[in-house]
Amino acid sequence: MKHNFGAGPCILPKEVFQEASQAVLDFNNTGLSILEISHRSKEFEEVVVETERLVRELLNVPQNYSVLFLQGGASQQFAMVPLNLLPEGGKAAYFDTGVWATKAAKEAKKIGQVEIVASSSDKNYNYIPKGFEIPADSAYFHYTSNNTIYGTEVFEKPTTSVPTVVDMSSDILSRVIDITDYDLIYAGAQKNMGPAGVTLVIIKDEILGRSGRSLPSILDYEPHIKAGSMYNTPPVYSIYVSMLNLRWLKAKGGISVIEQENIVKARTLYDEIERNPFFKGTAAVEDRSRMNVTFVMENSDLEAEFLALSKERNLIGIKGHRSVGGFRASIYNALSITSINALVDAMREFEEKHK
Amino acid sequence: MKHNFGAGPCILPKEVFQEASQAVLDFNNTGLSILEISHRSKEFEEVVVETERLVRELLNVPQNYSVLFLQGGASQQFAMVPLNLLPEGGKAAYFDTGVWATKAAKEAKKIGQVEIVASSSDKNYNYIPKGFEIPADSAYFHYTSNNTIYGTEVFEKPTTSVPTVVDMSSDILSRVIDITDYDLIYAGAQKNMGPAGVTLVIIKDEILGRSGRSLPSILDYEPHIKAGSMYNTPPVYSIYVSMLNLRWLKAKGGISVIEQENIVKARTLYDEIERNPFFKGTAAVEDRSRMNVTFVMENSDLEAEFLALSKERNLIGIKGHRSVGGFRASIYNALSITSINALVDAMREFEEKHK
Repeated sequence: MKHNFGAGPCILPKEVFQEASQAVLDFNNTGLSILEISHRSKEFEEVVVETERLVRELLNVPQNYSVLFLQGGASQQFAMVPLNLLPEGGKAAYFDTGVWATKAAKEAKKIGQVEIVASSSDKNYNYIPKGFEIPADSAYFHYTSNNTIYGTEVFEKPTTSVPTVVDMSSDILSRVIDITDYDLIYAGAQKNMGPAGVTLVIIKDEILGRSGRSLPSILDYEPHIKAGSMYNTPPVYSIYVSMLNLRWLKAKGGISVIEQENIVKARTLYDEIERNPFFKGTAAVEDRSRMNVTFVMENSDLEAEFLALSKERNLIGIKGHRSVGGFRASIYNALSITSINALVDAMREFEEKHK
Repeated sequence: MKHNFGAGPCILPKEVFQEASQAVLDFNNTGLSILEISHRSKEFEEVVVETERLVRELLNVPQNYSVLFLQGGASQQFAMVPLNLLPEGGKAAYFDTGVWATKAAKEAKKIGQVEIVASSSDKNYNYIPKGFEIPADSAYFHYTSNNTIYGTEVFEKPTTSVPTVVDMSSDILSRVIDITDYDLIYAGAQKNMGPAGVTLVIIKDEILGRSGRSLPSILDYEPHIKAGSMYNTPPVYSIYVSMLNLRWLKAKGGISVIEQENIVKARTLYDEIERNPFFKGTAAVEDRSRMNVTFVMENSDLEAEFLALSKERNLIGIKGHRSVGGFRASIYNALSITSINALVDAMREFEEKHK
């Protein structure tokens, strides 16, 4: 058994892979592959409707929010958000917690004025700044809720009266949130929602129509809302597999149940990192992510050897991002405690061998 | 056996479905699903490289053209083309051969000046206008090579000295073309290339960098070119299945071989439409598409009955688009002559019953 700690695209449940594989041969006993059905067929329309219903149910999305399945990932949202929400001459507030937050701000700067309201770049983004001011005249405030590279997560939404936009690509569906705290949420699917190729967007309808810009239809949220995510041919298979994964999450008991599992998984791994004298965490303790656990070795010369041992133990994808070094264990919803224990066992085995 | 005449997403070869299904369980004996591997893994980088190599080989793409795999379909290209190629104050020439060509022009009009150089809207787009002028001061000339709804196809590229941009979504890879006749080709994959969720773009590099516009990175071809289609997380599975389908096409003997099959398939069906007194074609004979065969009944009251018979005979997706009515048989690369014969048999059976 391989333990997939990859940062994304990443592990999904085995049951999802099995059903997703079968549907490529025969989708719902139609005699057709899910890859060859029309996106306008009744069968696929039901998939889109069910996927939206599951998102609404699992995240408790109120009726005055729209739920969209788009293409282009978070990177496309970096442009769509300011195009739709930032009027000419207006200003947007961005919170700089890492590379992805920086990219979002950089793209917004091409479209209008951007103010960076806080940054943790002084310490290579190993913490989440707190207690900063967000100008009340900002068109919106943008942040990234989980920073995969640095292993930090924003558990408490910064206080502000302006519309709040969040890139939740890597922690959506992993913990209970109150949608009404936010005005626009976007998330590339390829962590906890599904495979690469689809992007979830949840928008409070009333914040739209304010930028006054003439937009290409594909970049304007409104045509997508009017068409129920079918303005153009949607990424059929990515939506279908997302539906299977959301069904799995619902059958497990929903987000409050997976959140408890995620807490236990993260604690188990962080506890070992703290206990084991060979390892140390890189993120500020109070901001440690439950999705991406970043750690290095006290003696970095030993890192190659631990990486080799991990490979032998079938622990996949734990090499850290080059900007942090060391290791990163991504422990998304579908990764079981068994895999966490396998990693902990490898860390202990390494300790035994070297002490 | 179902005969899938759907207009797209559409039939792909059975062998492709089988391998695509297996890879969802175990990709290339990695012990991981294709849906959970990192897009930065060596294994997936090889997929992207091979997919590009196959496109270059099959279409004989010269080295001074870039090959990209993007998201957002042709609809996103409707915006990206003018944003990248149309300078402020410049003008683009569009050829109006149907709804998709109209949409492309409409999106371009949001970005700059557009001149419609010819249109067949006078006859519900049932022919391809010829012999029109394309102003030499146009930044580019845009057309749609195959019009799925009306069953018309542009076999001869209109003569012009300005850069030529073609939406080949529904006939790319179906017939031999000379890439050097074109400056930018785009195609949503979901006809002859692969499943929905990926868009092929082939660009002559020298036409880029001319619009002088500051673009969001995701809408700018250059970052995608520099990153080898990995500027952001690509639609992993859609690219992978496209690779399988391109391998299938290569193993068959390439485009010149499939073109001959497509000619025979189209002729067989058009011959029956002409012979059978109950049916008649809707497109001008010289412009009839080899990909989408549109036809109606002499007595339209009988159409519901023929549709019912088709369903009994497992002929899927032959109902015509509402703007033309009647029937549309989409006969893409992967549809075999066996399926064409099944449709012809149903037409003859219907004739026998009613004569």
